[in-house]
Amino acid sequence: MANEKECGSVHGVYSRLQSLIARFLSKNWRFLEKAWKLGASEPRKVIHCLKVGVALSLVSLFYYMRPLYDGVGGTAMWAVMTVVVVFEYTVGATLYKCINRATGTFLAGSLGIGVHWVASQSGEKFEPIIAGIPVFLLASAATFSRFIPSIKARFDYGAMIFILTFSLVSVAGYRVEKLFEMAHNRVSTIVLGTSICICTSMLICPVWAGNELHLLINRNMEKLADSLEGCVAECFNRDGIVKTSDDDFSKKLQGYKFALNSKASEESMANFARWEPAHGPFNFRHPWKQYLKIGAAMRNCSCCVESLSSCINSEIQIPKFLKKNFSEVCMRLSAHCSEVLKEMVVTMKTMTKSSTTDLLVEEMNFAVQELQNALKALPNQLISPHGSANDTKVETTSKQFIVPVIEIVPLATTISLLSEIAARIEGIVDAVEDLADLAEFKPATDNKPKQSQCVMDKTDDETMKVLQKV
Amino acid sequence: MANEKECGSVHGVYSRLQSLIARFLSKNWRFLEKAWKLGASEPRKVIHCLKVGVALSLVSLFYYMRPLYDGVGGTAMWAVMTVVVVFEYTVGATLYKCINRATGTFLAGSLGIGVHWVASQSGEKFEPIIAGIPVFLLASAATFSRFIPSIKARFDYGAMIFILTFSLVSVAGYRVEKLFEMAHNRVSTIVLGTSICICTSMLICPVWAGNELHLLINRNMEKLADSLEGCVAECFNRDGIVKTSDDDFSKKLQGYKFALNSKASEESMANFARWEPAHGPFNFRHPWKQYLKIGAAMRNCSCCVESLSSCINSEIQIPKFLKKNFSEVCMRLSAHCSEVLKEMVVTMKTMTKSSTTDLLVEEMNFAVQELQNALKALPNQLISPHGSANDTKVETTSKQFIVPVIEIVPLATTISLLSEIAARIEGIVDAVEDLADLAEFKPATDNKPKQSQCVMDKTDDETMKVLQKV
Repeated sequence: MANEKECGSVHGVYSRLQSLIARFLSKNWRFLEKAWKLGASEPRKVIHCLKVGVALSLVSLFYYMRPLYDGVGGTAMWAVMTVVVVFEYTVGATLYKCINRATGTFLAGSLGIGVHWVASQSGEKFEPIIAGIPVFLLASAATFSRFIPSIKARFDYGAMIFILTFSLVSVAGYRVEKLFEMAHNRVSTIVLGTSICICTSMLICPVWAGNELHLLINRNMEKLADSLEGCVAECFNRDGIVKTSDDDFSKKLQGYKFALNSKASEESMANFARWEPAHGPFNFRHPWKQYLKIGAAMRNCSCCVESLSSCINSEIQIPKFLKKNFSEVCMRLSAHCSEVLKEMVVTMKTMTKSSTTDLLVEEMNFAVQELQNALKALPNQLISPHGSANDTKVETTSKQFIVPVIEIVPLATTISLLSEIAARIEGIVDAVEDLADLAEFKPATDNKPKQSQCVMDKTDDETMKVLQKV
Repeated sequence: MANEKECGSVHGVYSRLQSLIARFLSKNWRFLEKAWKLGASEPRKVIHCLKVGVALSLVSLFYYMRPLYDGVGGTAMWAVMTVVVVFEYTVGATLYKCINRATGTFLAGSLGIGVHWVASQSGEKFEPIIAGIPVFLLASAATFSRFIPSIKARFDYGAMIFILTFSLVSVAGYRVEKLFEMAHNRVSTIVLGTSICICTSMLICPVWAGNELHLLINRNMEKLADSLEGCVAECFNRDGIVKTSDDDFSKKLQGYKFALNSKASEESMANFARWEPAHGPFNFRHPWKQYLKIGAAMRNCSCCVESLSSCINSEIQIPKFLKKNFSEVCMRLSAHCSEVLKEMVVTMKTMTKSSTTDLLVEEMNFAVQELQNALKALPNQLISPHGSANDTKVETTSKQFIVPVIEIVPLATTISLLSEIAARIEGIVDAVEDLADLAEFKPATDNKPKQSQCVMDKTDDETMKVLQKV
């Protein structure tokens, strides 16, 4: 009996252990799967990891080779540390850290040696005090400077390294005899580490923060254009056409969220980008700050698209006959808006000033005007296609049914949000044009206006048709 | 002549130098002024700087006192470095870095010693290769893990320290004879440094990330409530009452922007808060993630307020007589919305479940209904107070002027945005109630419902009056 019980409990423990291991393995498996997917979708991140490995291996050589080791006086440790701490994903971030680290170390090192010299002149009794007070004061001041936004953006890491080196030098100076040699070794190994980092990060598949920022803004603008068009289409075609792939479509609708949520990454990229040398089509003093303004204008616009998208799910839908009347004008406006945005994307991608922008904006504003005209023409038009008057509709003449205002609300909201979106898109256009001026984009070629003229002609025809209809 | 010329050029150089120095001094002066303002407005940041100074001075003592110095074997440098690198503004951030640094160092140190032992068994020829390959592989793997969001949020710093320590130990192991002693010293000094940091940051005026997050969300919610009320008031009273202090008022109007723009800081605070022990009213496992959901709901709502605020500056204003008709209902709705938000602030501040929330939400929804009823009643009401019919108004009966739809658009937009805002405020209420459940807020006292009943009665009276008017 006892044996059986024991056997049972052993079985119990065994099966529990088994399930525990299984759960552990499956959890790990899922984690690995996720990591694999991340790596497969962004191979540049995998390359970055290998670059870190390469940089570390390079710096290790200084340990393994006796002549090199002797050259840097056995403090190659600092070089390893520099590589690990300083190597970042983008070239800009790496340069920012390298320059900050080198400058901070150099400044604090010289200051520390000065303070050490003064302290050593003042006799053994006062030395710790005279060495200690500057540490307290300078550390506090440097820490405070890290709270000041303009310093935080550019020299945060440098301030930290300054505190670190200054305290190390002035505190260690009390015990280490060959202080000057130590400082010299530290500086030389840091220079070694930073140069390995900079070379590896700039020569092997470089990831430029500036380029990333440029691409991010472009991508977000494209997504914004798509989601704007999608939202308007959805507003007017809710119970119309069945979408082929709903999942893709709803993803497209949410595109504006990318622009809404990328403020932090835009800012950090712009901060790093200004450390980068000229690369690709970008000069050293490329106006990266202007990208932040474009981003802000896009967020501004996205907010309106967000409000518009809530129309889709609202309880009160646009009445069918109004939908029929207005869908064409609204869809045309949204198409024009998205066209303007896409022209901006092309302008930024090709870095060529666009000669069609003004025309496209005019067309967009014309579409806004058209929409408002259609709205103005509405009261004469409110003839319900259904013969019977609902009880919510007030009959005024034998043929006219006036729609109660409540049914016009969703349409009115959509229209006024669309007008607002068009106005905010002009803000984006202004920001992009400022960028084009600041970054001296190539002037427009003569090839394009003709194309746009065609578009204009086509649109004119269309609008004439609509106006005739109205 | 030559003398005069020389004298002139000397004068020129002198005056240029003078202006240069003056500019330099004034620039510095402005910078100092800015810094002073920052310090005066946020004294806790100044205290933090002094805390860094104190922690550094404490750790310096280990250098200055011979017995302590001998105790840690002369590697007190690591302690200084730990203090500088690890000490952060909030307790949570400091703990995150301390725990990550200690764990990363310990794990990598043990692994490094193991690898070193294996390498040392394989003969002098293969030692660098066998020691080098794991460095390359583990550094790459750890770097990659920093890209995985779940690891980045919690163990980013730990992964970096892991790479650092592992490469140091396994590379230095090739040259340093007393590797085990070095590892032991490093661990002990890091423990020393981290404990000084934790004590200083927790005992002297601690700044808790969790508390900061709590306050930030509360503050943003209050600002959102104020700006919502302000926006609606501005929409309806544009050419009405003159504001006493326009600057203050326009600041209040922009309050929703704080909620819109604080995503990044909310996320980092929530990440740090989970490392913090119980403090004030918060337990160790306080549901900090829920605050992020509240923040997201608030951003959602702020987006709509942003769209609403654009109504204020839009060209087409609400016609005066419609303003007159609707201002009361709209202002009441906005007051109810803001009341609900402020009740949520009280709930979070006192950490007590509110018994009036449901009532207040009901009242808010009732106000929405009321607004829509007022709108439904509109067509019968559209009697222009001015006798003369403008040309934009279509006369239908001798007494009734039907307003063209275009003039209703701004009102309709305002109303539908207000309804949407009310719906999104319900989302905020849900998120706060989830927080109340998760964090086990105190149950509501019986004191409040009576008060609210009064409010309800009053509102009922008011609404009855309005309904009678309509």
